[in-house]
Amino acid sequence: MGQYSIVGQRLPRTDGLAKVTGQGMYAGDFTMPGMLRGKILRSPLPHARILRVDTSRAERLPGVKAVITGRDTLGVKFGAPRFGPKHMDEHALAMDRVRYIGDEVAAVAAIDEDVAEEALRLIDVEYEELPAVFSPDEALLPGAPQIHAHAPGNISRRIVFDLGDVEKGFADSYHIREDRFSTHGQAHAPMEPHACLAHFDASGKLTIWTSTQVPYYVKNDLALTLGMPATAVRVILPLIGGGFGGKADGMYALEFCAALLSKKTGRPVQIVYSREEVFVATRRRHPITIQLKTGVSKDGAILARQAKCVLDGGAYNGLGVVTVVLCGYLLNLPYRLGSFKYEGLRVYTNNPISAAMRGHGAPQVHFASEMQMDRLAEDLGMDPLEIRIKNGLRTGDVTLNGFHINSGSLEECIRAVAEKSGWQEKRGKLPPNRGIGIGCSGFYSGASYRLRPDLPVYSAAIVKLNEDGSVQLLSGATDSGQGCDTLLMQIVAEEIGLSFADVRLTRADTDITPVDLGNFSSRETMYAGNATRSAAADLKQKLLVELSNLLEANADDIEIREGKVFVKGSADRTKPFRDLAHAIYLRRLGKPLVGEGTYDPPDKINYPAYGFGAHVTEVEVDPESGEVTLLDVVSTHDCGRAINPLAVEGQLEGSVHMALGWTLMEDVTLEEGRVMNPSFLDYKIPTALEMPPVTIAHVETDDPEGPFGAKEVGEGALCPIAPSVASAVGNAIGKKIDCLPLTGAQITRK
Amino acid sequence: MGQYSIVGQRLPRTDGLAKVTGQGMYAGDFTMPGMLRGKILRSPLPHARILRVDTSRAERLPGVKAVITGRDTLGVKFGAPRFGPKHMDEHALAMDRVRYIGDEVAAVAAIDEDVAEEALRLIDVEYEELPAVFSPDEALLPGAPQIHAHAPGNISRRIVFDLGDVEKGFADSYHIREDRFSTHGQAHAPMEPHACLAHFDASGKLTIWTSTQVPYYVKNDLALTLGMPATAVRVILPLIGGGFGGKADGMYALEFCAALLSKKTGRPVQIVYSREEVFVATRRRHPITIQLKTGVSKDGAILARQAKCVLDGGAYNGLGVVTVVLCGYLLNLPYRLGSFKYEGLRVYTNNPISAAMRGHGAPQVHFASEMQMDRLAEDLGMDPLEIRIKNGLRTGDVTLNGFHINSGSLEECIRAVAEKSGWQEKRGKLPPNRGIGIGCSGFYSGASYRLRPDLPVYSAAIVKLNEDGSVQLLSGATDSGQGCDTLLMQIVAEEIGLSFADVRLTRADTDITPVDLGNFSSRETMYAGNATRSAAADLKQKLLVELSNLLEANADDIEIREGKVFVKGSADRTKPFRDLAHAIYLRRLGKPLVGEGTYDPPDKINYPAYGFGAHVTEVEVDPESGEVTLLDVVSTHDCGRAINPLAVEGQLEGSVHMALGWTLMEDVTLEEGRVMNPSFLDYKIPTALEMPPVTIAHVETDDPEGPFGAKEVGEGALCPIAPSVASAVGNAIGKKIDCLPLTGAQITRK
Repeated sequence: MGQYSIVGQRLPRTDGLAKVTGQGMYAGDFTMPGMLRGKILRSPLPHARILRVDTSRAERLPGVKAVITGRDTLGVKFGAPRFGPKHMDEHALAMDRVRYIGDEVAAVAAIDEDVAEEALRLIDVEYEELPAVFSPDEALLPGAPQIHAHAPGNISRRIVFDLGDVEKGFADSYHIREDRFSTHGQAHAPMEPHACLAHFDASGKLTIWTSTQVPYYVKNDLALTLGMPATAVRVILPLIGGGFGGKADGMYALEFCAALLSKKTGRPVQIVYSREEVFVATRRRHPITIQLKTGVSKDGAILARQAKCVLDGGAYNGLGVVTVVLCGYLLNLPYRLGSFKYEGLRVYTNNPISAAMRGHGAPQVHFASEMQMDRLAEDLGMDPLEIRIKNGLRTGDVTLNGFHINSGSLEECIRAVAEKSGWQEKRGKLPPNRGIGIGCSGFYSGASYRLRPDLPVYSAAIVKLNEDGSVQLLSGATDSGQGCDTLLMQIVAEEIGLSFADVRLTRADTDITPVDLGNFSSRETMYAGNATRSAAADLKQKLLVELSNLLEANADDIEIREGKVFVKGSADRTKPFRDLAHAIYLRRLGKPLVGEGTYDPPDKINYPAYGFGAHVTEVEVDPESGEVTLLDVVSTHDCGRAINPLAVEGQLEGSVHMALGWTLMEDVTLEEGRVMNPSFLDYKIPTALEMPPVTIAHVETDDPEGPFGAKEVGEGALCPIAPSVASAVGNAIGKKIDCLPLTGAQITRK
Repeated sequence: MGQYSIVGQRLPRTDGLAKVTGQGMYAGDFTMPGMLRGKILRSPLPHARILRVDTSRAERLPGVKAVITGRDTLGVKFGAPRFGPKHMDEHALAMDRVRYIGDEVAAVAAIDEDVAEEALRLIDVEYEELPAVFSPDEALLPGAPQIHAHAPGNISRRIVFDLGDVEKGFADSYHIREDRFSTHGQAHAPMEPHACLAHFDASGKLTIWTSTQVPYYVKNDLALTLGMPATAVRVILPLIGGGFGGKADGMYALEFCAALLSKKTGRPVQIVYSREEVFVATRRRHPITIQLKTGVSKDGAILARQAKCVLDGGAYNGLGVVTVVLCGYLLNLPYRLGSFKYEGLRVYTNNPISAAMRGHGAPQVHFASEMQMDRLAEDLGMDPLEIRIKNGLRTGDVTLNGFHINSGSLEECIRAVAEKSGWQEKRGKLPPNRGIGIGCSGFYSGASYRLRPDLPVYSAAIVKLNEDGSVQLLSGATDSGQGCDTLLMQIVAEEIGLSFADVRLTRADTDITPVDLGNFSSRETMYAGNATRSAAADLKQKLLVELSNLLEANADDIEIREGKVFVKGSADRTKPFRDLAHAIYLRRLGKPLVGEGTYDPPDKINYPAYGFGAHVTEVEVDPESGEVTLLDVVSTHDCGRAINPLAVEGQLEGSVHMALGWTLMEDVTLEEGRVMNPSFLDYKIPTALEMPPVTIAHVETDDPEGPFGAKEVGEGALCPIAPSVASAVGNAIGKKIDCLPLTGAQITRK
């Protein structure tokens, strides 16, 4: 793997210094002359009809420049257009109905936040409260209150897969288990709240800086809901302080309200969500119950699997209409199944909205699947590792639903963590109240189908030679904190043969950069990476022609390496790339040299690549309090080739952190639709002190589809952690875990 | 001329609404978190040695974050590198010597302007005053104080041309005149003062928003003087509120100081010059004395011309080293000369710096030339128009110094204004104290040689197809108020066949746009226009191939017109361009479609094009007060094809305004090197009330080199005005005018 010079280097991230010094500019850091602050009035009721909104008192408050309600909008619904208008169920401002506590009712723009807050208090809304439902069980009852007219029975989306002959599979099985697992919500809790600054200028052009994972979605959603051509909307990506899927749906109410308020006032309008708003009125991980039935042969091969997932969708769809599909997809990983039947039911409730969150459906279903694998092993008297290795997918396998595994294997990951953790020496041999457990997962790299048919490109890139001899990457990819900016620059440097310092990046700006669908589904390394590599290769070909003419050498004899140009057989002709770039400009009389690239996956059903992960945790449990102490955590994830090992380790450590929070303490606690812990004081996230030591067992493969063999690591690495911890806790206290989070109360419950 | 649909339209400027509503962002409008304000300490003496600078008291003032002097710099000199290091004579901060009142000695960054001002007062500078010189005459005296060690005799630059046999020309002449004319300084007086915001970030990258006409010069000057690679400097062009040559030299002290203060403090630093600083410490039009000797045949043909120009250069070179060349060049226009000898002498004085200003040498020498043409006509008993028409250059002529006249003629311009003004009916037939006069000029479009050999490109452009079906022009051209943004967008629309609304523009940003040398020498329409047209043509060729495949039609049968695509012979297949652009993206799997273009003039000695202008003014003079009232002003300028007639009229009217100011009232008044009127209260610029009615006589030609036949109008149109007014005043009061400005005192002097 030593054939590359920049790929594989542990480079610090290109935005790192700006972030740690506080110099970096996030959406909330921008100011403009005359800028107003916007605030949104939200429903205090989980379900109600709006009878009357009186904004007159608010409008008269000095310092208030505009107040808007649903009446000021075109009433256009938005959402993911991939699944048709029926699933686009959200208004940026309520028209006549609110469906959860936090639903957007009105917005104001004022000279500062205090005046805006006061104006919100002066808006009189008369509601007629409607009966509400707070769980899928209630929502599915006959006669339950209808949340959306278009969705009888409160079914947001139902998905069924029937792959292979499940009846026969179960009939052939030596042993069958059926278990029910339940998982809970989790807040994305990005350090940076959702924030934007919108400027609707006098010429009718809207420019918006916004904290998003999907700038091009935001662009098209704004055009749609504001009734303007997409060409008149410009979305610029500032630094983003974390997204984790919570900024991935497309437009949120803040962007719409800031834009419309700016249009009404003729002034720039900034909206920064409070921490409470981020908790209540953005998105969260779906709470899912998973009914899982699995039939195995005597030697542990899975012959049949049947699953029913019921998702608490909350009040609107967002990307939740995808989650219910992904749960079914992801149950096809990381094991070979003889047959599979899936029913997914996403249910509307009057709870906050559930949608995509890091792992997107996988942590929930992998928790269920892994817990059941432990039980199957126990039932069959097998080692938990053995049954997993036996069923684990490997290169060359094709899953029932058509996933082609092109690199890696689960076995390799399991063996790596088993060895590092001393599994054989420990499992079953630990003192009382100590336990060791394993969790495994599989995850895809990048989306398969295009979520936005309104956007004609998956990922594209332009790489151009600058007059100063540097090379500029224009990329619409979104680095929301995961680090793709650095990776993409490495890819350009590697592909052309430059030093890292020779590469500059222009980040997503819909007026300048070519389209990229954004940061979700672990797609930027795969999609933007491949697009970038192809644009760089295109530029390199053009450069070699120019260099060949310039140096009067055969193009085949020219090598560009680490920022220098070499001519085979004449060491004295070695020159810095930058000097020759200048000379090329002169030769071309200034005609720009531009490379173009794209990545459009070869197969629109299949994903470009799949990765596997395994995780071993050793715990000590206090039987009195139920407190769980993590003694050792060994993590691996096959990310293909690590373009930047430092970034891979960051993702693995970050995954441990986020998954531990979900497993042990984080929970969006609801009471009749109200979030009871919408602050960092009440919503507990592991601190640095609560982080266990993390040992990383590196597994690198070379994926044929990924750029330089790379795959994802940002999401898949998260999935094995909850089951490995739950398995270890169960191992320590001799109890079957089927519910998250693993609170002391659950552990000590008899 | 009706063959175009967008070219020739009277389109309002694309930045017009932003400017008139106050929404537009100039450099001084930007703010950043933690931003500091910078201020510069200037020399109170015209010439002195710096013995000691003590900044300790300033540094201790609360709120002061950094103080810098020459000691904190690398001591690198800067200037126009075209003429070698000797002519790069300026330090951004004085090292040990100050050479004019206003020379930069130190700079501070503080939390606000008041603190920064106070800090300046606390800097102790001990000077040893040196003898100073305030006129070229003094400076050229033997034994005069030496202002620069490298320039004995205070000669900033001496230029000599000797073209044809002048001795013989004079010997053959029927009549010879020799006159001496003197012209004065003028302030550029842009509405927006010089301003910038510099951010030197933790990664070592410098980003600067600055009010400049030459972003790429600023980039390279900053890299040079700060000792950093050009790749680490990014210059972004905000809206610019006027330049007129006063922001064209490259870097000024404010950009350097803001950058270095930002580097020292780690915080963004903004410097906005006060109006006084703009008057005192930027640049002004050169005061020039012109000794002009001309020999003519009996019928008025110019057989010989000899000129000596002496320019008061002030303390440093800036672009003044070009002015002294241009005076000689421009005396070759607009008349055919039998022979020509020129000596230009730019002299260092301890006055403020003189450099480029709109017209750049032309208004001064054309004033001299035109006043003398009147006298020659009188001497020969000819009509002033007749002698001008006789000698006037026309298409096909080649001047002695090699200018190839490829379009237009002076005669056409003269006949146009003569007819509109009623010259024949008025000249010599007006009542007492009324007069009518004519002035003519010739001017080039665009620079010939490249002022910056460190920049490898004259003008380049990238035009790309956007995913939303619009077309994006990436242009480094600088619209500093003259309107090239709109023109370039028109050129893209016209060349491809789009509507104006289909075109978007990304303005100069050295990280993004391809190089353009900037806005000076009336070059953007010609250079950026041609580069843009060639990039658009390149994109169009690629589009036609794509459309041909998409529509299964012969490329020759496809027409793009006004934003629609037509297929010859099948009207039903007409479709909006935007829809097909989307389809092209799908077909190409997202690979960007990019057109590249450049313009590098075919002949590096000659200019790409030349234009002519003529101006007739009718005045009434109050013989008591000398007050001049302009009764009628008829202006024409052959701008080739008017891409935007509205913009052409704006330039003509603006030229009348600026030239009238120079002719009648504006003067940078100096007393021993001190500007005595550095404010808009004391420095009189014509107001709207003082503007005469302007009648425009349109003369359009079709220049073979200009984009769609266009030439310049921003500078040439200014030149005939002063002589036409002076000629009219002379005609009214029966006096020979040889000196500007035409104050009441001069007019009434016996």
